[in-house]
Amino acid sequence: MADVYISGVGMTRFGKHEGSLHDMIGEAVKRAIEECGIDDFDAMYVGVMSPEEFLGQGNIAASIVDYLGFSGTPSFRIETASSTGAAVFQAAFYAVASGYIKRALVLAGEKMTHLPTPTTTGILAEVIEQKERSAGATMPALAAMITQKYMSQYEIPLSEMERYLSKVALKNHYNGSLNKFAQFQEAISEETYFKSRVIAAPLRLYDCSPISDGAVALILTSDKTDMKVSGIGHGTDTLGVRFRRSFTTFKSTQIAAKKAYQMAKLNPHDIDIAELHDAFTPFEIIDMEDVGFYPPGQGVYAVENRETNIGGKLPVNTSGGLKSRGHPVGASGLAQIVDLTWQLRGQVDEKRVTQNASVGLAQSIGGLANNNFVTIIERSDRNRVIAPNWQPAFNPEIALKAPHQQDPESITPMGTVETFTVLYIAPKEFETPFQIGFVRDDNGHVLIAKSKEVKDLRIGDRVNLSQEDGKVFIE
Amino acid sequence: MADVYISGVGMTRFGKHEGSLHDMIGEAVKRAIEECGIDDFDAMYVGVMSPEEFLGQGNIAASIVDYLGFSGTPSFRIETASSTGAAVFQAAFYAVASGYIKRALVLAGEKMTHLPTPTTTGILAEVIEQKERSAGATMPALAAMITQKYMSQYEIPLSEMERYLSKVALKNHYNGSLNKFAQFQEAISEETYFKSRVIAAPLRLYDCSPISDGAVALILTSDKTDMKVSGIGHGTDTLGVRFRRSFTTFKSTQIAAKKAYQMAKLNPHDIDIAELHDAFTPFEIIDMEDVGFYPPGQGVYAVENRETNIGGKLPVNTSGGLKSRGHPVGASGLAQIVDLTWQLRGQVDEKRVTQNASVGLAQSIGGLANNNFVTIIERSDRNRVIAPNWQPAFNPEIALKAPHQQDPESITPMGTVETFTVLYIAPKEFETPFQIGFVRDDNGHVLIAKSKEVKDLRIGDRVNLSQEDGKVFIE
Repeated sequence: MADVYISGVGMTRFGKHEGSLHDMIGEAVKRAIEECGIDDFDAMYVGVMSPEEFLGQGNIAASIVDYLGFSGTPSFRIETASSTGAAVFQAAFYAVASGYIKRALVLAGEKMTHLPTPTTTGILAEVIEQKERSAGATMPALAAMITQKYMSQYEIPLSEMERYLSKVALKNHYNGSLNKFAQFQEAISEETYFKSRVIAAPLRLYDCSPISDGAVALILTSDKTDMKVSGIGHGTDTLGVRFRRSFTTFKSTQIAAKKAYQMAKLNPHDIDIAELHDAFTPFEIIDMEDVGFYPPGQGVYAVENRETNIGGKLPVNTSGGLKSRGHPVGASGLAQIVDLTWQLRGQVDEKRVTQNASVGLAQSIGGLANNNFVTIIERSDRNRVIAPNWQPAFNPEIALKAPHQQDPESITPMGTVETFTVLYIAPKEFETPFQIGFVRDDNGHVLIAKSKEVKDLRIGDRVNLSQEDGKVFIE
Repeated sequence: MADVYISGVGMTRFGKHEGSLHDMIGEAVKRAIEECGIDDFDAMYVGVMSPEEFLGQGNIAASIVDYLGFSGTPSFRIETASSTGAAVFQAAFYAVASGYIKRALVLAGEKMTHLPTPTTTGILAEVIEQKERSAGATMPALAAMITQKYMSQYEIPLSEMERYLSKVALKNHYNGSLNKFAQFQEAISEETYFKSRVIAAPLRLYDCSPISDGAVALILTSDKTDMKVSGIGHGTDTLGVRFRRSFTTFKSTQIAAKKAYQMAKLNPHDIDIAELHDAFTPFEIIDMEDVGFYPPGQGVYAVENRETNIGGKLPVNTSGGLKSRGHPVGASGLAQIVDLTWQLRGQVDEKRVTQNASVGLAQSIGGLANNNFVTIIERSDRNRVIAPNWQPAFNPEIALKAPHQQDPESITPMGTVETFTVLYIAPKEFETPFQIGFVRDDNGHVLIAKSKEVKDLRIGDRVNLSQEDGKVFIE
């Protein structure tokens, strides 16, 4: 196994771009090449989530290698929904580690802002499992249901949870103000946060990452550089969120983290800085628990105690994260790794430098935590000896393989509310506000159900269920 | 570098399936697992060209790993247009060769027949470069233009070329009649071939592969089996066909072949059997030249002399090829490798067994030869010693990297016809028949041009050109 190193890296500013996806990728690649002088590659790895739907263009790997003037060079397209940028990095890692590919150009991007928001939202919703999608579950809705369950499980009152979430949003917007590549470059006030409208209770607009354009590039090589890839990990989970044993942890992240630590022979306490997938503010909290930084239910206190702020014990998303840097879906996973590289090289705004940081961790979520990645990189000049008796300190209990589950043919007349949300923004075929949730029927099957009218529900409530045309309703 | 071996393989019959893409993939995977008993994988590689557009479903890698009951296992989606099945194999090859992944489940599939043909054709056309597509160039049109150029370059009269093409079609349909997984299981007569309608002159319906559903699976492992992957190669070419130096060879195949032979330390004369990408019958001829089986312009004589028939010197597409087995776009590249494995294991209909075959070559085309792959596999019990002074016998002159080219801002009033075709079947916005071609203007720029009316054109003719709204017309 050849060691794998990061050489030049580059990025466009994220946000609204007038140019094409190809122009943005060209800009990011130019920066990466200029940084290291390497402009000859054995292969190219292209991460774009949905150029077919966002741009009406197929054959994207060939199209981009041609546009960049590298036509002839092998070019693969890799896709795993919103973790595409991390997937393309890991696919290229294996190629370089194999010894067959010496230098790989890894790039990722997405162009999304040119379409009307409902069209973009519709494309993004295609990653959601069919039954949940047709019940009206959007990504914010599912994130909100996960948040409600977290509050219930750890007995956190709404007002307290809102404070924690606001602190994540405020931290990441402040961090973004120090990152010239971020979409939002201004800190926001507590007032701004609390005045923003509720999308899916309890999540507000400022809990959700924006729609963005952007591109990222990075060169992987088997020649030693100052930045080594020490560990990678990757895991998946059921497409239907309702089929999971836990709604407050992401098994796919836990599997990925465990593998990455194992390969790196590192443990969570070795990590100096992290970029975590905060497509929604509660995800940053769950992510911190899933990669072993904090025990389950304790992530909120890390936020409260400012431990993850710049200068804190373990700075998280000093780039601004997806929340403030922006979230061009195919690009975000690679943007995290590029920003960590800049942080570890001391090439970011001095106000966000973490002193003596030598190890960084990136974690990326695909879909609703269906296909997640963890990547650990470290400075090559880090002075470390791996003890022959190295032991993993992060050992979550996880089933490494789960059988496929399906909805039951018939349901019981009553069930117990597992979690729910009220949506105030929804696909156009749904009248808002409406309430959806997961209900466990008396045979133990968890169903996606829509309330016939918005009710004062609580998790654990007993409710009457009905079924029409394969859809389940809370009476 | 770990050696990489093929274990169990599986396939559905190609053709029209009532079930879902997931059902088909499940069937192929079940066969592959049953063949070898391995049902635990470190990673899964999923090749599907366009589930977003054919099925309205994103997140396909996560969706399939869940459906198969392997949720938890890492799952990558790989795509390179119509060579997706070969790309997913090569991406998985690198992972196993790296030593990090011991066992990978590689699968590929496409569901296409459920949509109206014009919709399917529209989706497939998205792989064509924008300018060529908007001038009315379909895949058959570009293949026809390449065929016309081949005839002109090697001075082959139309009637003779038609005979060669019919022989490829007849051979592959006969071969398909011996393959229980083929979409078409009947040989066709010369009369049937010549009675079929012209799609884009000189190509008839029976020169074109059909629209198909199908799925394929294969297990790659670092544990030794009876089937070794000896060489892989991959190359790309300009998205716009008009920008190429040659229209009668595919540089992307040549690059891929050269690399695969180099890795395998083999030469074209070592190959016993081949599966080549015959999406159009003339491609099988060009493919044979591009992988070094025959010199440029000589492929037609190999067909004429039945050298590539079953029992011939070098049997090509004994499976029936894309032409007769069918062409579910994402699956074909992997289907070639699965069929070669069956051939080398002697597990095919006895009428199509090639005696003493121990080395097979697969070649796959992505788009209009934008992203091509060559894969060489061999029986592990083959008795061979690699000479320390091994030298490549296949050394096509190819530029390994080409700069990006664009159309000129203005064109000259006249130009010379490089190649052309007349289309009788076209996207609905075009009135048929119509004529398009590549014309070289007097500044040396090759343009895609549409005739204002169908003319008796010849390659080399001088024509008057005009330009309206960025489109070029032959007056």
